Parts: sequence; structure tokens; C-alpha cells
Amino acid sequence: MNPQDSFAWTKFQPESFWARKRNVVLTNTIPFQLDMLKSTGRYDAFDLKWHPIYDDEPATWPVPKHLFWDSDVGKWIEGLAYFGDFESATSADDDDDDNQDSKKNLQKLDEAAKDLVQKITQAQQEDGYLNIHFTVVAKGQRFTNLRDLHELYNAGHLIEGALAYQLRYQSDDFIKPMERYIDLLHKIFGPGKEQKHGYPGHPEIELALIRFYKRTGSQKALELARYFIEERGNNEGVEGKHYYDVEAEARGESKYTLPVYYPAARSYWYNQAHKPILEQETIEGHSVRAMYLLTAVADLVILDPKDFGDKYLPALKKLWSNMVTKKMYLTGGIGAINKWEGFGIDYFLPQSTDEGGCYAETCAAIGVMMLAERLLQIELDGQYADVLERALYNAMLTGMSVDGKAFTYANQMATSAEEPSNKREEWFECACCPPNVARVLGHIGGYLWTPKTNTSDKASVTVNIHLYAAATLEYKLDGSQDTVKITQKTNYPWEGIVEFEVENPSEVKLDVNLRIPAWAKGNWEVQPKPSASVERGYLHLDTTYLKANPHFTLTLPLAPRLLRPHPFTLQRIAVLARGPLIYCLEDVDHTWVTDHFKSVVLAPGVTQADEDGELNKYIVEGTKTDLPLGENYTGLTMKNGGILIPQDDLTPVLEVNTGLRALVEGKGAVDLHFFPYWARANRGGKQQMRVGIRTVD
Amino acid sequence: MNPQDSFAWTKFQPESFWARKRNVVLTNTIPFQLDMLKSTGRYDAFDLKWHPIYDDEPATWPVPKHLFWDSDVGKWIEGLAYFGDFESATSADDDDDDNQDSKKNLQKLDEAAKDLVQKITQAQQEDGYLNIHFTVVAKGQRFTNLRDLHELYNAGHLIEGALAYQLRYQSDDFIKPMERYIDLLHKIFGPGKEQKHGYPGHPEIELALIRFYKRTGSQKALELARYFIEERGNNEGVEGKHYYDVEAEARGESKYTLPVYYPAARSYWYNQAHKPILEQETIEGHSVRAMYLLTAVADLVILDPKDFGDKYLPALKKLWSNMVTKKMYLTGGIGAINKWEGFGIDYFLPQSTDEGGCYAETCAAIGVMMLAERLLQIELDGQYADVLERALYNAMLTGMSVDGKAFTYANQMATSAEEPSNKREEWFECACCPPNVARVLGHIGGYLWTPKTNTSDKASVTVNIHLYAAATLEYKLDGSQDTVKITQKTNYPWEGIVEFEVENPSEVKLDVNLRIPAWAKGNWEVQPKPSASVERGYLHLDTTYLKANPHFTLTLPLAPRLLRPHPFTLQRIAVLARGPLIYCLEDVDHTWVTDHFKSVVLAPGVTQADEDGELNKYIVEGTKTDLPLGENYTGLTMKNGGILIPQDDLTPVLEVNTGLRALVEGKGAVDLHFFPYWARANRGGKQQMRVGIRTVD
Repeated sequence: MNPQDSFAWTKFQPESFWARKRNVVLTNTIPFQLDMLKSTGRYDAFDLKWHPIYDDEPATWPVPKHLFWDSDVGKWIEGLAYFGDFESATSADDDDDDNQDSKKNLQKLDEAAKDLVQKITQAQQEDGYLNIHFTVVAKGQRFTNLRDLHELYNAGHLIEGALAYQLRYQSDDFIKPMERYIDLLHKIFGPGKEQKHGYPGHPEIELALIRFYKRTGSQKALELARYFIEERGNNEGVEGKHYYDVEAEARGESKYTLPVYYPAARSYWYNQAHKPILEQETIEGHSVRAMYLLTAVADLVILDPKDFGDKYLPALKKLWSNMVTKKMYLTGGIGAINKWEGFGIDYFLPQSTDEGGCYAETCAAIGVMMLAERLLQIELDGQYADVLERALYNAMLTGMSVDGKAFTYANQMATSAEEPSNKREEWFECACCPPNVARVLGHIGGYLWTPKTNTSDKASVTVNIHLYAAATLEYKLDGSQDTVKITQKTNYPWEGIVEFEVENPSEVKLDVNLRIPAWAKGNWEVQPKPSASVERGYLHLDTTYLKANPHFTLTLPLAPRLLRPHPFTLQRIAVLARGPLIYCLEDVDHTWVTDHFKSVVLAPGVTQADEDGELNKYIVEGTKTDLPLGENYTGLTMKNGGILIPQDDLTPVLEVNTGLRALVEGKGAVDLHFFPYWARANRGGKQQMRVGIRTVD
Repeated sequence: MNPQDSFAWTKFQPESFWARKRNVVLTNTIPFQLDMLKSTGRYDAFDLKWHPIYDDEPATWPVPKHLFWDSDVGKWIEGLAYFGDFESATSADDDDDDNQDSKKNLQKLDEAAKDLVQKITQAQQEDGYLNIHFTVVAKGQRFTNLRDLHELYNAGHLIEGALAYQLRYQSDDFIKPMERYIDLLHKIFGPGKEQKHGYPGHPEIELALIRFYKRTGSQKALELARYFIEERGNNEGVEGKHYYDVEAEARGESKYTLPVYYPAARSYWYNQAHKPILEQETIEGHSVRAMYLLTAVADLVILDPKDFGDKYLPALKKLWSNMVTKKMYLTGGIGAINKWEGFGIDYFLPQSTDEGGCYAETCAAIGVMMLAERLLQIELDGQYADVLERALYNAMLTGMSVDGKAFTYANQMATSAEEPSNKREEWFECACCPPNVARVLGHIGGYLWTPKTNTSDKASVTVNIHLYAAATLEYKLDGSQDTVKITQKTNYPWEGIVEFEVENPSEVKLDVNLRIPAWAKGNWEVQPKPSASVERGYLHLDTTYLKANPHFTLTLPLAPRLLRPHPFTLQRIAVLARGPLIYCLEDVDHTWVTDHFKSVVLAPGVTQADEDGELNKYIVEGTKTDLPLGENYTGLTMKNGGILIPQDDLTPVLEVNTGLRALVEGKGAVDLHFFPYWARANRGGKQQMRVGIRTVD
């Protein structure tokens, strides 16, 4: 079960950290995005009439501005579908006015969703084909540019929309047309002599098809997904040539004519199609595409561990490990290079444009979460959950403003004069991130835990708990009426205490694997004390323990920590963290800053603290409330923590004894006020921000 | 007078540092290059017959493999012309066998040069046009792609060849055809309605034309050079459009069709043609092109300080300063990016391919020397001479093997698994660097000093002495028989003592400006002590002093120094220097190295030395002789100077107190043997080398 299909088991306690986020999405984000769909032409696009924007030159050649419209609609419906009725159950008092309003508001949205599904159904062609651009604008050019034109990507998001729609409205209205479309695609693509041996330039449909198979049992969907994955990167796919080469030649495209996001001719690594997945040694190219592709690969490993998994799991782990050890920011963000929205070379992790890059797209962080969650299903190992949690609380969550009304696309570690990127936008022409964040917050409950009825003994269940949140899991065992209920009471991530409450009326055999974060480094505690010890990041609580202790408490240490990237990154910095949260400096708290904190150096003493605890002698914690909607947070002030490099001492060639230490020694220090990175850019200011602060050592 | 036209005034003492270099060029490099010209087809190409290579696909689209052949021949003739008779005069005993052999050898070369000039003359077309590719291969396509096809670049190198040829052989055979070609170009290019408003994609002809004007007084050459410079980067040059756009459209080229060295469509900054020179704020693009262009600009400033200089000198200084303060390696090398062989963004100076780049082309270092020398003519300021000297002894000289038989094109600061670049090649398809090094070593004497008959008083002369070398300047005053002679006796750069001897028989008024390097930092000494003090890097020795002290001695401190790049480069390294020489580590002296010295860190104590002198407690100097041809050098051994980062301690995310200092504290140290960078890659080994060594602070 993937998070998107299991989220409904989870209820969040009102006013809790994640309930707040989901609330602003439902009350602000989704309605606003519906207005945008309408005002930009997306809403009516499935009526298949001409829109003036269809005449525009592509802003990003060869991609027309409207090319993603199908997917924007699909993602909006999907996002909405993860809210609603599921919610109201959790609401404290059903009858208060707010709740009545939100019910009305929700009805409007539901109607829009149903209306859109009708338009989509009517837009479907005789043969089952369904795509705005190739039906209205580029008639007769279907499947002539899989590499660049997002035809199958759009299909994938429509399929995911249909699956969520079915779950939410208990209706097959959207599933049916998608099934017809899948049948058509299954006819067109495949190994057969008459079939096209192609695959999408932007993976997405693969994971959608697998979800479709799991819901409906459609073998065609499964076969198609597997074909796209196994054929991908075949350099002899069509008469001994690469499919994209043949496609390009058929279009009469010169070898030296490049999409603007390609750094060189035929950079198929941008699409993870330079060689078969099994032969790829490092993770390359567009980071969202890479994550969506590998998520689908992981899905197939789960479905077919022997035949497929034995071959693909080692490749999957190799690429994951290359990514997390050499190509991931401390925020869990991925993608250093703006031009191809993707990975740079190993250890190339600049913080900002003036350092040579930093992209860390919001959608890519969501992709990291998706992939990590699948890997946790393959093997329960804390390393995956640690990355999942880091990406969730930092690289992903920073993509949305506290009020849910504005979004960032790229999430840099530092702003610069070249790119003062600490500002969110309401909408983007390529609007992938905003609805994606709405989507993931919609089904975030599915990421917290994985309950599983054990196949060996149908009356027993294992629950893997990955994340901490004020929420309740209500799980009905497969093929029985028995349910188990696990509730977490916590103010995490601000406080480290999590109280667990297990309700197991029918006394089914229940055991739990409770994640202990690597960052807790042995300073955690579970009361009452279990006998088991932590294995690969999880503490096993067996049936006996849970029966004896339906109430138990996990305490995690939240002392501020300083993190460092690998020295080969050339990033001579430390990053302040507290629990799962990465912190940053913002100009609103440091009105004196003029150079984006480039010349701030951490006072030598700070980085030489003997133990984590030692940082407390520099750092004062305080609860702050200067965020919108009364959102409060823990701010960290480093007393006399920062020293400014004297600019005059900075010459292009510095002689001996002018290391940073010597440059700042004896200079006066200033207080530094650290702020949670996810909440940056919510308090105005002049767009100056930095995560990694220079150190002397 | 530019170095190429004044070199003949300088005689080097045999067996001295530069005499050795010039000897191997004359005895090994130039004869070998003649063989290459013959075996590759270049020698006979001016016979205008078809050559099989003309059918090949371009290796670097759209540049055919043979496109630079004209310039290769021009540069070879030019290089040869700077040797020969000028030389023999300096030889200790004229009649020994070696000398007889070298005379014979020289005669062969002279004959080849004359033969080539004959071929060139015959290859010239009716109307004066002269180019192999556009006469034999691409007939009728003259001047249809100035941006990419090096048509005018080739002309420029032929012109420079002709100028040197005239000086060496006292013959106009080569000058004459070039004059006819220049007349044709002057007809074709210019502001006139019927004329092309274009300029070369690769500047070179501009400085050649100015040299041509200075020698021959040709106004057409001067006008053409000035037009190319003033029109360059005009975005409304042709009917409101950029010349290169119009040219590309005329070729029917799509906007998304790119030369492989362009990172994006119409990246005219690669050619320094994105805007007029006067509007360029930073130095951009292909570094050799940038240097050749700015050298020509400086030449015009010298020729016309008022009308042209007032406008262009500030722009010139702005670009120079951007380059030396933000885009230059400590070796004097420029160009971080391999793809466009040029500049990256400010402070982007990675040491190696695995860090994101490092190119530092040999020809670009030569360009830096040329530009610095011109700027010294405009204003005598040590900052220019310091860069000139650094580029000469490091970034340029490292391009040639000690025996003159092999060359590097790019000169990285560190090798890597991705690019073990510590190896020289005998020849390159684009053979710009080898003959360019031969050329510059041919006229290196012209860089040592600038003698000038003072316009005010024809009987007085000022000599600016920029560099130290075992050589004699013999200068005949303009319009008189009076000569002055200045001799330097020194073992520089290995020893810091330079003895000067002035011979001034006719007692003309002579004064000298003697450069004191910035790196000498007040620790230098001139004996007998003059009254004057150093101004802008030069010590003025007036007529009285020189009359009283025809023998005086300069002593420079050669204690090893550690240099650091600007912290914004993110290069947390120190570089060992001694006098003008930058040092590196090579695997031959450290057989244990396996990772290109990536995990070597300088022992904390070293970088905290209070003063330069302090380094002596770590460093042992020794004269070594393990180079070919008995070349000896001063090696520097840093006792217990290096500590290896324990690889197991390197995790992607390091927690507090795992700064480099903590990682290496208490670990055992190893000796580091530093070797002059210019002489790297002469002693075999496994191609592992590094200039900048990691530091803890």
C-alpha cells in the first residue's frame, strides 16, 4: 500500500503541526488553485476549444506554455480528493460555524472536480486518446516527440487523479476513461514489431500505471509500466539506434539542435535514458524525473521481488546511495544545477547561484519522499526514514508559505545578489510544485506508518512507525472486522516527547517497529523500557510488550546540533539543526546584513564544542510567534556566534597566516538568530537568507 | 615596441634558465613541429590540393578539423623567426661541433620557412584572398560564418608570421601578399553601406593589424583593427540586429542549433561579442579570445591615448581587475570551464574536473602575459608585472616539457580520477598551444625590459626592467649611434641575487625603473643603497646613481610562502610558493598516494606560522637533479607537513566537532615533497598532482 492509497487510515488531531498545514491547503491552496485553473484557461481546456496562449512561442523551447495543462488538472483533482469527508470525522465539534463554512466550501470544490471529470470524459477521442495539446494544437503529431512533449507524463497525472477520485467519491467516472486510454497506450507501446519502442521523456506514468494495476488488477497497466522501465535507455532500441535519435531524425531535427534544458546534443542522461537503468552507475539529470522513475522501479521490486527485484534492487540501491552520499543537500534537497533542474557531479553542492548553483526543486523533494517510502517497504531500514523525514520537514515543506498561498519552485541554501530567491510565487507557468505540495500534504498521513496484516497469520498485524505526529492510525485487518488503533500525542517537531496509545479491542496479535532517528544518537528513551534493542534504526515492540504497555512514551533529544557536509563538497560550513529541522539565517532578524551572510563566520568556539550538548552554552532556545496564523516555532539564538570577515582583508591572493581563523581572530562577535528553514520567507525582509554558515575549521 | 618586435635587443647567457628553454625549442620543438606540419598535411596545404581529412566530420561542430591550418603554419614561421642568427652571436665559442650542427639544422628550417612563404604567395587568389578552407573546401562561402570559422584568425597569424619573417630574413616576400590581403579585408569590412559590419569570432587579427601598421605605417591596417574593435558586440549592427544573428539566419540556422562549445543559443559572450566592449562589466567567455582582444584594445590605447584611450582605458582596467581579482588561479592561469575554454562566474576557481572544472589553457596564459605587458606600457605599475611574472613562470611554462617535445593544452591545478591530466602530448588537432609556446620563448627577451628613447631629450633613455634573467640588453637609441648595455647576472628563479652591470660608453642620460615584486614584501635590498623608494612596484634609479654605480645588486627574499585564494572561491587550500614559482605535489615523490592528494591536509601548525620566515622550521630546501637534460631545481620538503583525512570518518553528513581540524587532530603526519609546478609531468608517475593543499583553517 502506497501512502496515497493508505492515507485515509490516518486522522490528525486538530491544531497539530500537520493538521495546520493540511488545513491551509484545504481552505486556501486548493480553492486558490481552482481559481487559477479557471483564469488561466486550464479549467476549460478539455472543452478542446482554441486558447490564445496556444499561439505563443514556447518560453522553454520546444515545450509550449500549455503543455502541462492536463497534468495540472489531474493533480488538482487528486489533491482535493485527499481531503474532505475523511477530514470532518476528526473535527472536534461538527456543528460550529467554521465547520459549516468549510463544508460549503468543500461542496463547491467537489462540484468543480466532478465537472472537470465530465469535461475530461467528453474530451476523450474515439480510440481512447486523451491529451489537450495533441488534440487541439498539434493534431496528427501524437507520439512524435516522447522525449520533450510530456504526452505520457500528462496521462500519468490524469491516472493518479482518477485513482484518488475513485477513493474519495466512490465513483468510477474518472477511472473508466483512463482505463480506455491505458488500453490504447498498451496497443501502441511495446516490444511488438508493429509497436513503438518508446518511453516517456518525463517518467510519471510508470508509477501511475502500477498504482492503477494495484487498484484495478489491470494486467495491461502493469505490462506497460514494466515495458517503459525495461526498455528505457536502450541504445539499440530501434534498428540499432536510440529511440530518441530515431524520433528526432523523423522530425528532421539537426543533431546540433537542442532543447534549451540540454547542455549538449542528445544529453539523454537528462532523461535518465542514456543507458539502461541496470547499467547506470550514478544518478543523473533532471531530479524529479529521476525520482519518479526510481519510485516506479521500487514499486515493481515490491510487486515482483524475485524475477524483477533480484535484477533491479541492486541498481536501485546503487543510485540511491550515490544520491544521498554525494548529491544531496543537508535539507534533503536534490539538484544543484538550474539549467537541467537536476544533479551535478559528485559532491558538487553549491549553496547559491553565485557559488555555481543550487536548485533543490520542491517536486524533487517530494520524489525523494516517495522513493524513500518505497525503499522502506522493501527493507525496513532507518537510513531511508531519516532521509524521508529530512526531505519532508525541510526541502519539501519550505516550498509552501505558512498560509498556503505562495510557493517556491527552487529552494536554494542561500540567496545571492544574482538570485534573491527567498520569495514565493502564487503560481507558475509550469505549475508542477504547488499542486504537488497540496497532493502530498493531502495524503501525508500515509507516510507516518505502514500497517500490514501478516500473510502467515491473518489475525496478526505489524505496524512500522516511521514519523512522529499528533495523529491516530485506525487499521482494519485484511479480511476481518478486527481493527487496531494507535494514537500519537506529541508537539513534535518542537518537543521530543511522543506518547503512544494502543487500542486493540479484539486483541489481535500486534507488534510495532518504532523508528529511532539516527540523529538521536543513543540519547533517546522509551518508557516503560522494552528489552529489545534498535536494529537498523527501528526498535521492535513485540505483542507481549504492547499488551503489557498499551501506553508508552518515546523521548527524543532535541538539543541543537551542528552538521557539516563532506569536505569534498568544498563547503566549509556548518548547518544548525534541531531534531529533524534545519535552520537558517534571515535578514529580518539581522537588519545589518548586506551580503547575504557571505562574510559571516561562526565564532571558532562554537564549532569546537566537545559534544552536542556543549552547543547549549552558545544557544538560547525561545518560542517565537512572529509567523502568520499564530503558527509558533522554536527559534535558536547563538550568543556572539557570528564574526564578520573584514572585507578589506580579503585580497585575491592572501599570504600565509591569513586563513579564516586568523582573519576573524579577536574580532567582535554578533548574535545570530536561527530560524527554521521550512518557514523562511514568511516574514517579509529583503530576501537575504543562508543555511550553511562559514566556519574557521 | 611590443616584445615580439624588441626581443632582438636581448641576448641570453648560455646555460642560463631561459637559454635552456630557448635551446630546446630551437633544437627539439621547432624541428619536430616542422615534421608534424609535413606529416599532417599542413605543410602542403597551401598547394590548394584536396586532402582526405577535408572529408571528415568536424570533431567540434561546426569547426572542420583542418580549419586552423593556415594559422599553424603562420605561427611556426613566426616562432622560428625569433631564433637563429640572433642566437649565434650569444654562443660562447662559435666553432665547436654542436654549434656547427645547430647551424646546419637551422639552415634546413630556414629553407622550409622560405618554401612555405612561396607556397603561401602562390596560394593567394587574384583579389588578394588567402585561406585554405574557403579556397579548396568551402568555395564561395567566404565570410559567411565569421563567428565560428576562424577565417580572420588565420589571417591574423599569417600577418604575424610575415612580420617576424621580415625581421629575421630582412625580406618582404611574406609581407607583400599579406599587405594585398589586408587591402582586400579593408574593402570588405567597415561602416560603409556596401561593407560587411562584421568582426572575427576569434580575435587575433586586430593585434596583428596593429603590429602591421606599426611596422609598415599602413593606415588601412590600423583602420580595420579599430573598426573590428569598435563595432564588436553591437546588438544593432545590421538593420537593428546582431551581426552574428543575421549571419546565422542567412545560413538558415535554427535558433536552437548551437556550436558544441556554446552552452546555450547565441551565447555571444563566448566571443566577447554580447555587448560593446565599453559596456562589458565582467570578463567572459573563451579566455584566449578575451586576452587577444584586450591586448589589441591596449595597443590602440597606447597609439591613441586621447581619442581612443580616454574611452577604452577605463573599460580595459575594469575587465583586467575583474579577471585578476575574481577569475585567476594562483598560477596566473585563467579559464575554469572546459566546455567553452573560458571564464566561469566570479570566484569559481575549482582545481580539477571532479571539483567542477579548471582549464587554464597555455595560450590563455600567454595572452595574460601579452595584455600585462601592454598595460605596463600604458602605466608602469608593479601589479601588472607581478601577474606577468606569475603567468610566465607557472601557467605558461608548465605547458611545455623540459625537453621541449611535449605540451599541455589545459593546465589543471589538480588531477582527478575523472581527468588524470598530468601528461603532455606531442601534438594536438587544434595545435594552437605548442607553436604559441615556441613563439613566446622565441621573443621572451622582449618581456624582460622596455628601453625607450625619451621623446623630450633624444639623447636620454629610460629602461623599465620587469623581469630578472641572465641576459644582456643592448639598445641603440632612436636616431643615433649611441648604445647602452645592461647585463643581469643571476641564477634566478632559484637564487634571489641579481647583479646588474651597466655599460654606457657614450654616457647618454640613462635612468632605470627596477621592478620590486609585491611578494618581496619589503625584504628586498639594492646595494649600493639608492635614495629613491619604491613607487607602484618600481624603484627609480636615476642617472646620477647609475653613473656612480654601474654595478649594483638586487637581492630578493626567496623564503617559501603559503598563499591562499579568496574565501569566496570556496577553496579551503594553501599553495606553496617560492619567489615567482608555484609548487605542487606529484605522485612520483609520494608513492603512497591513491586519491590525487584529495585527502591530504596541511598539518595545523604549518598554516599558523606567524611570519613567512616561520615556514622554514617546517621546510627543508634542497637542490634536485632528477629532471631531464640535467635541469636542476630547488625542491621543498615539508617535514611532517601532511596529514591524511581518515576516509572512514567521512560520512555525507558530519555532526558537530567533525571539522577538518578535529578529523586530523592527533593523526600521524607525513613529509610532503613540493615540486615546481612548471616542471610537473616530466618524471613519469601515475598522473596524480595537486597545487592547492587542503588546510584546517
